[in-house]
Amino acid sequence: MDGSLGRGTPRRRKLDLANGRVDLSHGSGGRAMEQLIEELFVSAFANDALDRRDDNAVLDVPPGRLVVSTDSFVVSPLFFPGGDIGSLAVHGTVNDVAMGGAVPLYLTAGFIIEEGLPLSELKRVVDSMAAAARDAGVAIVTGDTKVVERGKGDGVFINTTGIGVRRDVVAPSADRARPGDVVILSGSIGDHGIAIMSTRESLDFEAPILSDSAALHGLVAAILDVAPGVRVLRDPTRGGLSATLNEIAGRSNVGMLVRERDIPVKPAVEAACELLGLDPLHVANEGKLVAIVDPADAGAVLAAMRAHPRGAEAAIIGTVTAEARGLVQLDTTFGGRRIVDWLAGEQLPRIC
Amino acid sequence: MDGSLGRGTPRRRKLDLANGRVDLSHGSGGRAMEQLIEELFVSAFANDALDRRDDNAVLDVPPGRLVVSTDSFVVSPLFFPGGDIGSLAVHGTVNDVAMGGAVPLYLTAGFIIEEGLPLSELKRVVDSMAAAARDAGVAIVTGDTKVVERGKGDGVFINTTGIGVRRDVVAPSADRARPGDVVILSGSIGDHGIAIMSTRESLDFEAPILSDSAALHGLVAAILDVAPGVRVLRDPTRGGLSATLNEIAGRSNVGMLVRERDIPVKPAVEAACELLGLDPLHVANEGKLVAIVDPADAGAVLAAMRAHPRGAEAAIIGTVTAEARGLVQLDTTFGGRRIVDWLAGEQLPRIC
Repeated sequence: MDGSLGRGTPRRRKLDLANGRVDLSHGSGGRAMEQLIEELFVSAFANDALDRRDDNAVLDVPPGRLVVSTDSFVVSPLFFPGGDIGSLAVHGTVNDVAMGGAVPLYLTAGFIIEEGLPLSELKRVVDSMAAAARDAGVAIVTGDTKVVERGKGDGVFINTTGIGVRRDVVAPSADRARPGDVVILSGSIGDHGIAIMSTRESLDFEAPILSDSAALHGLVAAILDVAPGVRVLRDPTRGGLSATLNEIAGRSNVGMLVRERDIPVKPAVEAACELLGLDPLHVANEGKLVAIVDPADAGAVLAAMRAHPRGAEAAIIGTVTAEARGLVQLDTTFGGRRIVDWLAGEQLPRIC
Repeated sequence: MDGSLGRGTPRRRKLDLANGRVDLSHGSGGRAMEQLIEELFVSAFANDALDRRDDNAVLDVPPGRLVVSTDSFVVSPLFFPGGDIGSLAVHGTVNDVAMGGAVPLYLTAGFIIEEGLPLSELKRVVDSMAAAARDAGVAIVTGDTKVVERGKGDGVFINTTGIGVRRDVVAPSADRARPGDVVILSGSIGDHGIAIMSTRESLDFEAPILSDSAALHGLVAAILDVAPGVRVLRDPTRGGLSATLNEIAGRSNVGMLVRERDIPVKPAVEAACELLGLDPLHVANEGKLVAIVDPADAGAVLAAMRAHPRGAEAAIIGTVTAEARGLVQLDTTFGGRRIVDWLAGEQLPRIC
């Protein structure tokens, strides 16, 4: 206890954002943590709920059902072509809420910071989060900061939990695909995973491969406008398109038949996959979605997606079948047919 | 891609919960992750929202305002006298929601696991979380699992985000204390921090000091029953009672005058604090709260708290003053008066 410096005497110096580093005192619950929160987080995320500065946020939500999702982000490196852990932590959770058919409204943010992280890097991450949240129309309303000793973390891990509201008529879920439904993919696959992997491996391509990390709530709104009864919405992140289609096939107890030639893959991504021995179907995306719709809605949904910037390359890639339930089959470019399985082991650790 | 083993052929072996360890494949988004989620998390947390197994939960909430809080838990060691990181991750967030005057309803859970963690330890943590959530009447409705390489984490970190609902007449907040208000503490301070510290330092006391980690929503409900207009509710966790009182003094722009002799500290905790050179006012609690109430309500609130098992030792410890705004003053047992400041540096890293 130190009686010499009361709060009435605000003599403390500002955080040294250019040269300072996070130390254990920033997670202590004491004055240093208060300062980090004030000068770095609150100033970047400013909104009414956060400014109240209680350990909770009090929120108004419009009528409808609440849709909630949580994700922890451990991507390595923290900064990559096309994004960083901050923007990714917003996009990833906004998208999981949007895939529930909801309008994302609020995010919480929990930071686990490794002692020694330069404050300048933390500030870049926080500013990027704030910008991504503004762009997506969500407010970061409450948060938490922990600091772990050097060697017990890796720079910074971020958890975000998202809250949104959906209309009662909307109820997409992985168990609602039915035989005859049409499978639509919003654009090219593999961009995010390959962007991360090529940064890690210091691969140089003629054209750099950028992550597709992006918020998809606007694209979802465009789909719901024309097809509020959309059966399934999913973003194929970890595990790639193959995991997403397998999960839907299993949960809905249906088969899936997709055509390789209709699945967009950028030439540079394809080349990198060959070099790295990866299958684009297993590589993560952070700005793409799969919509499964009644065949009567397919034309309108495809047109609505193509009219949206995040769905310009949208394509019908296959159909839901009554045969081969629980399996995903691929008609290959070479005229064969094979089963597309889940990723069995580990392919790309820490891509999100 | 491996066409030899479709989902139609469920030949996989169950997780080896006795001798297995978490590896990177458990965070891959592929089959191993699916298995970990099914056999460990879903089976322990089972509820309708989680069983849907989408990347989000769809929730019904009763009328009222939404109160949301998030916390990441990085406590070391994972298991300590009186609790573990699993029960703590439930209690901590349930309490932050309850301090907003809300009934906690739902939790999300995000796990960041270090490669190599024994599955048996993870199962103990998850079972403890499930039990704590059942006891607190909250459902764990959606989650996320990430795995980081050995040396990039520390066993397991857990983020929980809590959602509750409060009645419109209830609005406790740290900026609502007024001169003349009464400060009530629900019980003895320092138990949690000293339980962690003595485990880490392998201190042996005649009577082991147990963490006070507990859910306080029931105690809050008892307070709200008699005083729905309670001004401030706060649980003094990191930074201890001193941080909580200083924050309220600053946010409400009032002074605080508290009496050392009325603040309960267990003799064993006091002895440990002397040995370790700690001030109990700075040591974390995980099952105590501070209520600041109108003097007209103080008697009823104190009686209601004492009638509840979590508030049996509740005591009036001081008053809110118009003097010395922004400062917390302590009348010491020895007849002096001194300022109680925030913790300045780091005292007890990773106690929550």
